[in-house]
Amino acid sequence: MLDLRPILLVTGVLLATLGVAMMVPALVDLAAENDDWRIFAASSLLTMMIGLALWLSSRGSPGSMGLRQAFVMTCLVWIVLSAFGALPLLWSGSVPTYTDAFFEAMSGLTTTGATVIVGLDHAAPGVLFWRAILQWLGGLGIIVMALAVLPMLKVGGMQLFKAEAFDAPEKILPRATQISGIMTLIFIGLTGTCAILYHLAGMALDDAIMHAMTTVATGGFSTKDASLGHFDSAAIDWIAVAFMCIGSLPFLLYIKLLRGEPRALLRDTQVRTFFMLLAIFILIIWLFQHHSGIHDGIEGLRYAAFNVVSVMTGTGYANADYNAWGPFSAGLFFIIMFIGGCAGSTSCGIKVFRLQVLWASLGQHFNRSVYPNGIFVPRFNGRPIDDNVVAAVQSFFFLYICSFAGLAIALNMTGLDDLTALSGAATAISNVGPGLGEIIGPAGTFQSLNDPAKWVLSFGMLLGRLELLTVLVLFIPRFWRG
Amino acid sequence: MLDLRPILLVTGVLLATLGVAMMVPALVDLAAENDDWRIFAASSLLTMMIGLALWLSSRGSPGSMGLRQAFVMTCLVWIVLSAFGALPLLWSGSVPTYTDAFFEAMSGLTTTGATVIVGLDHAAPGVLFWRAILQWLGGLGIIVMALAVLPMLKVGGMQLFKAEAFDAPEKILPRATQISGIMTLIFIGLTGTCAILYHLAGMALDDAIMHAMTTVATGGFSTKDASLGHFDSAAIDWIAVAFMCIGSLPFLLYIKLLRGEPRALLRDTQVRTFFMLLAIFILIIWLFQHHSGIHDGIEGLRYAAFNVVSVMTGTGYANADYNAWGPFSAGLFFIIMFIGGCAGSTSCGIKVFRLQVLWASLGQHFNRSVYPNGIFVPRFNGRPIDDNVVAAVQSFFFLYICSFAGLAIALNMTGLDDLTALSGAATAISNVGPGLGEIIGPAGTFQSLNDPAKWVLSFGMLLGRLELLTVLVLFIPRFWRG
Repeated sequence: MLDLRPILLVTGVLLATLGVAMMVPALVDLAAENDDWRIFAASSLLTMMIGLALWLSSRGSPGSMGLRQAFVMTCLVWIVLSAFGALPLLWSGSVPTYTDAFFEAMSGLTTTGATVIVGLDHAAPGVLFWRAILQWLGGLGIIVMALAVLPMLKVGGMQLFKAEAFDAPEKILPRATQISGIMTLIFIGLTGTCAILYHLAGMALDDAIMHAMTTVATGGFSTKDASLGHFDSAAIDWIAVAFMCIGSLPFLLYIKLLRGEPRALLRDTQVRTFFMLLAIFILIIWLFQHHSGIHDGIEGLRYAAFNVVSVMTGTGYANADYNAWGPFSAGLFFIIMFIGGCAGSTSCGIKVFRLQVLWASLGQHFNRSVYPNGIFVPRFNGRPIDDNVVAAVQSFFFLYICSFAGLAIALNMTGLDDLTALSGAATAISNVGPGLGEIIGPAGTFQSLNDPAKWVLSFGMLLGRLELLTVLVLFIPRFWRG
Repeated sequence: MLDLRPILLVTGVLLATLGVAMMVPALVDLAAENDDWRIFAASSLLTMMIGLALWLSSRGSPGSMGLRQAFVMTCLVWIVLSAFGALPLLWSGSVPTYTDAFFEAMSGLTTTGATVIVGLDHAAPGVLFWRAILQWLGGLGIIVMALAVLPMLKVGGMQLFKAEAFDAPEKILPRATQISGIMTLIFIGLTGTCAILYHLAGMALDDAIMHAMTTVATGGFSTKDASLGHFDSAAIDWIAVAFMCIGSLPFLLYIKLLRGEPRALLRDTQVRTFFMLLAIFILIIWLFQHHSGIHDGIEGLRYAAFNVVSVMTGTGYANADYNAWGPFSAGLFFIIMFIGGCAGSTSCGIKVFRLQVLWASLGQHFNRSVYPNGIFVPRFNGRPIDDNVVAAVQSFFFLYICSFAGLAIALNMTGLDDLTALSGAATAISNVGPGLGEIIGPAGTFQSLNDPAKWVLSFGMLLGRLELLTVLVLFIPRFWRG
């Protein structure tokens, strides 16, 4: 039997933190003389109390955890925090049912950005702030998880990024504590800079802060129904492009940047490939828009860059309905959705380094087929890739496609049409936000979907955010045996 | 520089054979007093002459070939034979352009079964016979290729099926010659049996023969616009189900069957998994039809079995428009398309053994994640799978998904809508036949597509049929260097 105390300890601490964070929208609503402040305050107290209770109940916890406990903890934290983060959304009447509230909270904490709320333009400030906070905390949480937990669990080849001094499951908690401090500071710094720039570009201060929080977290929740398109400002769009990219780079490199090693960022092969892929897709969409007469010249570049970056990084902002651009761009956006950003960032998807490993391994396979006696070694960042990493990444890719197909079929079963089901599965597992088509496309919302579909999508967001294996491993019987 | 003579030798011999085969529709048309016989006779003479010319020009050929020559030969044979097989279709006026004719011939030789001909019910018998012959020859060719060529080229893990006495590229031609005789006899035997059963079940003799040829080849060309649905006979549907399955099993096992080892077939893990997957999907579709009130009881089982087998084996017959059954079954059929049959059969797709290898490797990955010190070995047919096979299969899967996405985007670029582009790419690369939606679905044809789309699809069919790598390897510069 697993010792649950270290798991409850971490869950309790984080739940209490979430409760404290709920005080922010309470204060915002209080300042705006909105009665919702009581709801946030009550939710906050409840969440803090349960968090503290869990914390206290885990007294005598060994203070370190094994591998299996780390898997359980990771999943439990995301589910429990979503379950409580949903409460103020439900009680404030922003959404009609708990299903909707849970969907919205999960979409927030996983930095997906799919929304079920219609009428954001007239929503109370507390609720808007709460959605932004959920994404911001989710983004921060995912960075810490990607740096401290996933490499240890060897999820999908993440051991490629294992720090040398960090090689046993017992080090997960100390490592997480150690890096979460500096990462929080970096995250606050980036968010603040982004907010100031948005404000200078003409956004109201509160909108600027909230959008900065969801930009740096590559989340995509907006305070407007028309998303960033509401502002219709080239400056705002370009600031968003810059900070969505910043949110998608490996955050570990920002520490090196602070230490005065800017070259580390520029030399990193994952960063270079990320920008190369972006450049290619932006160019294609730009040329396509020019060719189809949708947007010309520099304006075309703006729409191309904004939407490609928004979809590839999994942010999910919209400044135009790219569905209306025709089947080619919709098809391309569907493919781009799967890519994602760099490992160790707030973005989701398959991630650039995995595509690089797959590509390198494919090259080796091609070369070996033609020259069976030649020696070909796949490399990443100049170093040979360990066979176990290649195998883990290839298994991850297979699992990604299977999970996508499974989610799409499950969504089909709830009665969604094929395009909505396929793009809904893709957007959930890659934590993007909008899908394709009229219903869940950039111009629609997830509101009208049925409840089972919302639960399937919530599960899909969790699955994608925790890199599949972390969740699915709990379903194999062997996991629970001695 | 590659010595082209052995390549031209094989291409010449096979082209001459194709020319001889064109005499069959010539005789059929002559017997039916149809003037098209002249066109087939002329095409036959032209094809035979060019085939013989290639053959003669390759005099002094070393009689064996290297690895790179084997790659070039495999691609060239399929392209050249399609190019000449298209001639009588064009000249007889069955199709308006050479693009259409090439598409139809490629769809035939790759056993895809996608058609651009409307009005099959009133087409001349020669043309109908020619389409059936193309698929039958393609099916036979693919079995020989899968047994003699692909294991040698180590394409996508096919080395798993390498015969022990067969381990150098020089043995490709002798091996191909050796097995093509017995395989031709088995193929004729199966086709004859199927034809007799179809005839007994009420089909006219010529329809029975042609349908038998395209059933055993899991091709899917029909002599009727409504495909097998035209006959509306439960007996015919069940015969088709049986022989589509027979065409999807490893043909090497039929040799063992003839040698009196029937257990080899029943014990083969790939065969068992193939039937298990079929059973699962048939059950799901059957229950779904019952639940939705489309077809009840035993009739529902018939429609479920027929369509699941037809799509999964890549045959592509239709006895109903499963598009009209709603998004769930359409979505499921879209996924089933990718599976295919067993290696060493006439069916295409990812193939069952690859899914088994991927699954076994995934299980190993899961187990290793939870128990890093445990030893877990993926197995196939009871034996441990070589690491190189796992790597080759995983690379194949990645390449399959990338090729599918690339084809879908290319089809999008020609202006097709998303559903047609996605399902068109899937149906081409998996050599199924019909796609989804109104245009290319089971009730439509590929006729109305634009020319670039037809070329993209032709390329996709070739790519899928030759297991991707065989074609794509020709595009890497290193291949052509010393």
